[in-house]
Amino acid sequence: MKTSGEAAAERLRQFIERVERLDEEIRGLTDDRKDVLAEAKANGFDARTIKTIIRLRQLDDNARQEAEAILETYKAALGIE
Amino acid sequence: MKTSGEAAAERLRQFIERVERLDEEIRGLTDDRKDVLAEAKANGFDARTIKTIIRLRQLDDNARQEAEAILETYKAALGIE
Amino acid sequence: MKTSGEAAAERLRQFIERVERLDEEIRGLTDDRKDVLAEAKANGFDARTIKTIIRLRQLDDNARQEAEAILETYKAALGIE
Amino acid sequence: MKTSGEAAAERLRQFIERVERLDEEIRGLTDDRKDVLAEAKANGFDARTIKTIIRLRQLDDNARQEAEAILETYKAALGIE
Repeated sequence: MKTSGEAAAERLRQFIERVERLDEEIRGLTDDRKDVLAEAKANGFDARTIKTIIRLRQLDDNARQEAEAILETYKAALGIE
Repeated sequence: MKTSGEAAAERLRQFIERVERLDEEIRGLTDDRKDVLAEAKANGFDARTIKTIIRLRQLDDNARQEAEAILETYKAALGIE
Repeated sequence: MKTSGEAAAERLRQFIERVERLDEEIRGLTDDRKDVLAEAKANGFDARTIKTIIRLRQLDDNARQEAEAILETYKAALGIE
Repeated sequence: MKTSGEAAAERLRQFIERVERLDEEIRGLTDDRKDVLAEAKANGFDARTIKTIIRLRQLDDNARQEAEAILETYKAALGIE
């Protein structure tokens, strides 16, 4: 039978290994994301603009249009054409 | 038959949706990671130290022991006990 | 006369204290930056749009207008009004 | 006399220019920090350990010693020598 110390060590190990497995999956998906953006770039698309579009698609239309209206107002106020 | 513009728009949409699906999976796994650390904390373990252990386990023994030896040397030099 | 170890320890301390002083200055300026944005917000301005404008002002006109043209093209392709 | 729109545009410009000046100072100090670490490295010191020492010096002795004790406990539990 395990001592309480051994049991605690075992539980600690399990928590650590669960986080490590998740980290590995996240690294894999992050690499996949880089590959997709590289593939898009190779197909003539602009990766930075794709990321901007993805941010915009996370906003609902009203929030996005309001943000764009404020930006246009500020650009005009500062003479940015 | 699609025009070249429509074909390009379709390919752009596919790239964007592939990245969005990866982003969603990454967000899910990142939330899972937080949950595991919260569960570890609820079980009396220290989340910050778990993260330090995970970083150490990514180093090979020599690199880790060398880093620890340098740290001890610097701590002694600066009077940090 | 200092031993070489003591001399090395002294030089190490100096490097560390120089970095610490810089860190402190950076923290101070970062706090000032937050204060200015909070003041702008209190005056009815939108902090997020101010940050976007600052990013845009770092681009030369051509680069900025090209980026905006690509964004408009992608938005139209994806039916984002 | 300025219209209210012109006055608002002027105040917006002032807020933006204040943030831009702070950003420039922060960039300068960040570059200085890199220079100091590069200088330390050129003098045979380990930049990563210097950063670790700086983090440790921000903790009071008790907090630091407690964190180190927990780390040693977890390392032993996981067989990390």
